[in-house]
Amino acid sequence: MSIVTILGAGVMGSAMCLPARDRGHEVRLVGTHLDRDIIDSVKANGLHPKLNVKLPDGVKGFHHEDFGAALGTDTDLIVLGISSAGVNWAIDRLCEALKTPVPVVMITKGMHPEEAKLTALPDRVKAEVQRRTGLSLTIAAIGGPCIAGELAVRRHTGTVITSHDTAFAGTLCGMLETDYYHPRVSADVIGVEICAAFKNFFAISVGWAVGHLDKMAVTENRAFNHNAAAIIFDQAIRELMVLVKAHGGTEQSVWGMPGAGDLYVTCQAGRNSRLGNNLGRGLTYKQTKEGPMKGDTIEGAELGVVVAGTLRAMMGNGTLNPTALPLTRALLDALTNDSGLDIPWADLHRHN
Amino acid sequence: MSIVTILGAGVMGSAMCLPARDRGHEVRLVGTHLDRDIIDSVKANGLHPKLNVKLPDGVKGFHHEDFGAALGTDTDLIVLGISSAGVNWAIDRLCEALKTPVPVVMITKGMHPEEAKLTALPDRVKAEVQRRTGLSLTIAAIGGPCIAGELAVRRHTGTVITSHDTAFAGTLCGMLETDYYHPRVSADVIGVEICAAFKNFFAISVGWAVGHLDKMAVTENRAFNHNAAAIIFDQAIRELMVLVKAHGGTEQSVWGMPGAGDLYVTCQAGRNSRLGNNLGRGLTYKQTKEGPMKGDTIEGAELGVVVAGTLRAMMGNGTLNPTALPLTRALLDALTNDSGLDIPWADLHRHN
Repeated sequence: MSIVTILGAGVMGSAMCLPARDRGHEVRLVGTHLDRDIIDSVKANGLHPKLNVKLPDGVKGFHHEDFGAALGTDTDLIVLGISSAGVNWAIDRLCEALKTPVPVVMITKGMHPEEAKLTALPDRVKAEVQRRTGLSLTIAAIGGPCIAGELAVRRHTGTVITSHDTAFAGTLCGMLETDYYHPRVSADVIGVEICAAFKNFFAISVGWAVGHLDKMAVTENRAFNHNAAAIIFDQAIRELMVLVKAHGGTEQSVWGMPGAGDLYVTCQAGRNSRLGNNLGRGLTYKQTKEGPMKGDTIEGAELGVVVAGTLRAMMGNGTLNPTALPLTRALLDALTNDSGLDIPWADLHRHN
Repeated sequence: MSIVTILGAGVMGSAMCLPARDRGHEVRLVGTHLDRDIIDSVKANGLHPKLNVKLPDGVKGFHHEDFGAALGTDTDLIVLGISSAGVNWAIDRLCEALKTPVPVVMITKGMHPEEAKLTALPDRVKAEVQRRTGLSLTIAAIGGPCIAGELAVRRHTGTVITSHDTAFAGTLCGMLETDYYHPRVSADVIGVEICAAFKNFFAISVGWAVGHLDKMAVTENRAFNHNAAAIIFDQAIRELMVLVKAHGGTEQSVWGMPGAGDLYVTCQAGRNSRLGNNLGRGLTYKQTKEGPMKGDTIEGAELGVVVAGTLRAMMGNGTLNPTALPLTRALLDALTNDSGLDIPWADLHRHN
């Protein structure tokens, strides 16, 4: 039995309580400043109001100001369950609270844009904590197709745990594997992380095909628009290959659970798809954010805005081949210029 | 302008009238003995009763006994649109009617099982026609995500045209590309053909996850079973890699439109998915065929039965690694032993 402290009590962080508790670990769930109501509810009766499930018995809730107390001197593993927007906040908390190195696994999806390339968040967290505290953390990240609400009710879920220290990734798989949670080891940190972040971005474009059906005349045979969605889905895999390989990752992450598997699940439901649906109906990103998706956090769109400068610089200096990324370019244009999403059909599936 | 004679007036063969006519080619659509009503309707008013669309003006219908007349001496391209069960019938018709070699493109999906390996249908058709008539056909095949009813109303559709003669595949792309039909050249005949055939087989297993939801208790948070579907979807890609590489094909066909793209579309709808849904609800293949899917042709299941012997022999002699194919083995067992489909969760995503 180990002691697992989860920082971030949103749906994904909290869903990790399931395999952790079912494997008999002690679980301390620490909310951020945004999770006060969630933690109050967990403390009162174990109910997670956003997951709409009762967490397993024994999960102990903590507010963020008690993170140090939750961590104690006995935590064996920290799970970072904060959103990508909260990474700097989480780094601050780690730097305040850690006295000795504690292994960390991140479930946050996102990329840190530098001038010349994108950096994986675990590498950024490790570097920042080391710079500020001198502590060298062993760090891993989880990718792959996982809808939190399904994991929270013990649906079969497959993930990939990646770390530069693959022995550590293997230890985590051994700690967390259950008869419904199926983690697998990957050594490809940057590949897994690019897939985890960009599947949301590309799911917007697949959603476009579904929404665009509403703009087309109904045909006598009631045809859908699945063929179009499939071209785009597969172009997304193709462009993920380009992005991952340019950053030193492997093709297997792209066609495996982190890429194709997670893109599949992301296209079945969720906010990124819904933004795509609205773009397909002819709205712009801004119109969607001001109208049907007011107040929603749309991870793939926020990622696109954050990484646009770096990706365009990489295309400009030849690190990335722009003709191999027509869908990426169309999505970046739609998100940053507030133009409609214009699928460049004739350019798809032309270049690797 | 060329003259295109299509043999087989089912939905997929007939949908090829669209890009062919829209590019200005003369199109002669020849029904099989099963297509008499379809051809009568096309002759009367152009309506294709199974597609439920009016074919473009100028498509000329022919009954199968008039194949020779339709072919004439001026056909530039034969499109074989028969089902895999009709391949031997089509070979007979070609051997009767051909006086000189005419280029052929096949849209039939299936594999020819030999003792030691699977053979692509275009290679089999070419070999048989050569053996029986001495004529050497230039032959190609089309794979990729294409629901016929969508192509028939000019929805965006991406395909791959593959041939050992890539210049011929390029010529076909040039003949058929429109602003909605997007064919691309591939040199990987066996890879494209294995994907085209086996995506139906594997779609059964993805459908299992959807159907299995009906057997599970409804949870308070109304969770679906998408995570499970995604593990299986991605394992299907992984096992397609194993099958394709063992036959000399390329990974790009598997993660490209023939594999991942077509599997995506096949999992959205169709009979293979519906068989999977029924297996997920606990029925066997036989019970499904005698009950909710009585009389339906389920291509993926028929393929499994046809190739089971060859695949098991290949796993027995080490040409295929059985531990890399747990999903294939589970599907073959379900289809040939009439047992339930038992997803081997712990074995998924373990071996390449």
